[in-house]
Amino acid sequence: MITAYAASSPESKFEKIEYDPGDLHPDEVEIAVEYCGICHSDLSMKKNDWQLTEYPFVGGHEIAGKVVATGVDVEHLNLGQRVGVGWTARSCMHCNQCLSGYHNRCAEAQGTIVGRHGGFADRVRAQSEWVIPVPENVELVDCGPLFCGGLTVFAPLIENNIRPTDRIAVVGIGGLGHMALQFAKSWGCHVTAFSTSPDKEDEAKSMGAHEFLNSRDEQALASAANQFDMVIVTVNADLPWDAYVATLKPGGKLHLVGAAESIKATVFPLIMGEKSIGASPTGGIVPARQMMDFCSRHAIKPMIEKYPMSDIDEAMERLESGKARYRVVLEA
Amino acid sequence: MITAYAASSPESKFEKIEYDPGDLHPDEVEIAVEYCGICHSDLSMKKNDWQLTEYPFVGGHEIAGKVVATGVDVEHLNLGQRVGVGWTARSCMHCNQCLSGYHNRCAEAQGTIVGRHGGFADRVRAQSEWVIPVPENVELVDCGPLFCGGLTVFAPLIENNIRPTDRIAVVGIGGLGHMALQFAKSWGCHVTAFSTSPDKEDEAKSMGAHEFLNSRDEQALASAANQFDMVIVTVNADLPWDAYVATLKPGGKLHLVGAAESIKATVFPLIMGEKSIGASPTGGIVPARQMMDFCSRHAIKPMIEKYPMSDIDEAMERLESGKARYRVVLEA
Repeated sequence: MITAYAASSPESKFEKIEYDPGDLHPDEVEIAVEYCGICHSDLSMKKNDWQLTEYPFVGGHEIAGKVVATGVDVEHLNLGQRVGVGWTARSCMHCNQCLSGYHNRCAEAQGTIVGRHGGFADRVRAQSEWVIPVPENVELVDCGPLFCGGLTVFAPLIENNIRPTDRIAVVGIGGLGHMALQFAKSWGCHVTAFSTSPDKEDEAKSMGAHEFLNSRDEQALASAANQFDMVIVTVNADLPWDAYVATLKPGGKLHLVGAAESIKATVFPLIMGEKSIGASPTGGIVPARQMMDFCSRHAIKPMIEKYPMSDIDEAMERLESGKARYRVVLEA
Repeated sequence: MITAYAASSPESKFEKIEYDPGDLHPDEVEIAVEYCGICHSDLSMKKNDWQLTEYPFVGGHEIAGKVVATGVDVEHLNLGQRVGVGWTARSCMHCNQCLSGYHNRCAEAQGTIVGRHGGFADRVRAQSEWVIPVPENVELVDCGPLFCGGLTVFAPLIENNIRPTDRIAVVGIGGLGHMALQFAKSWGCHVTAFSTSPDKEDEAKSMGAHEFLNSRDEQALASAANQFDMVIVTVNADLPWDAYVATLKPGGKLHLVGAAESIKATVFPLIMGEKSIGASPTGGIVPARQMMDFCSRHAIKPMIEKYPMSDIDEAMERLESGKARYRVVLEA
């Protein structure tokens, strides 16, 4: 039996439950959870914002722990190995997307907390390929948030062919943005942080920003015209989209990882500047492995606030308050 | 002196004028115009829609003719050589964009009809690099529209790394779309035509469309969900953007070359499908040369209606009526 923290409805608090996970699937791995980050999507899923939630709901998809059981077909992971799991726990492995390395685009991909029970638990399971080894010099306490939040801002650097000679802006210095700054800095890029909180300037610069702009300052935004190869938007707010498009160089990309409701942009500047607006969720298996290697080499880690898993309701409230700097992590 | 057809105001008809082009710039070429296509942007410029127009206005930027004079620094073009010129007549050649091969993104690029006199004339001038040689087996009468309209739909295939294994949709079978179909077909792609005119089906298929969909038929649009690597929108209408985004495969691109006023799209499907919305004007020098080579090899040409240049007002009306199939070309 697995012991987990489950919500029985959108409004209810988490309660300890036990569930029987059944036989271990031949291609899956069971992980003893040591830490599990809380992501905004855990909150959205708990509240059934996306009409995807099954109750009792066990969230948690920023998992760090150790392999305690392997399915009979699993050969590349060992008992006791330090690993992590993010948003996705399984994909079909035979569609064109999976076979092209875009496993996260698989139409049959299963979220770790969508129709499955996640990492707010003592143990959790995932398909072995989606179980990402943690390099020796990366601490388990630090790495949970990398597997969802981190990968969400790391994958766009890969998928958009960002080069170290590029100039990158990160809009929103929070749970995603503070990792994006570190990735972009270690990627070799020039990095600009946009934030509505001027008090984050020093911290943003310590995390890799070469410049800091108050995004509520229209003049500052206007002064950044024509500067960036990519602007990564990590906030889910309705922004002055045309003003951000104007900050792109010709050929530049505005890339959304925060789910604003809709985006409206004037077409003429897009055409004349050959600019584009893209978006992505979290990333695939290979980018996740590459991210861990990159974090190991560049000593990148999220800034976290740690709670015992038994204080999960308090931790969720902290996340919801928007005051956490920057990721909330539960300790099992 | 150069003899040209000029409009003295947004409303006036074209009248014959003579103007003195001055000394030939060392890096420019003078071309005897044999044919000049009319593009919608000639109409927009005549009406000063973009607040860019100087009067008297001499339009014409789909030029085909022969070199009659070369500046002292021009070594790669010869007198009598068959050439063409499109939207751009000059760029700085020393900014990062020019030096990276993106001459069309040069901030100092000069449009052939913006602050210059265009090809509704017996002669016209352009910087030699922007003067594109016409391959032997391409007729001058056919090639004018390639240099602006054609390049506008050819360049996106290059810049978006479209591969012959991709599935492409073309929205709008008109002046741009009928060339896009031919390019995409000869590129090796599967091609779908979207049109509001069911009577264009046979023609669209003869030009390369494997499938034809009535874009006013919501069910047809819905049935195309998840199909395309790129959808090229050649119309400047306010489309049901989310419905077109839905027709993209994961990772697919909606690409606008028609200047709708603005685009509004729901963000969640963009994120989940890693889709993007891009746009572009006409293309650069190297894509223009590649296009001419491609047209020569694949016998691609626009479908045209020919008018004597002296009937320019009638020809402009024909263009404005939207009934031309598909490009209007003036014969000098």
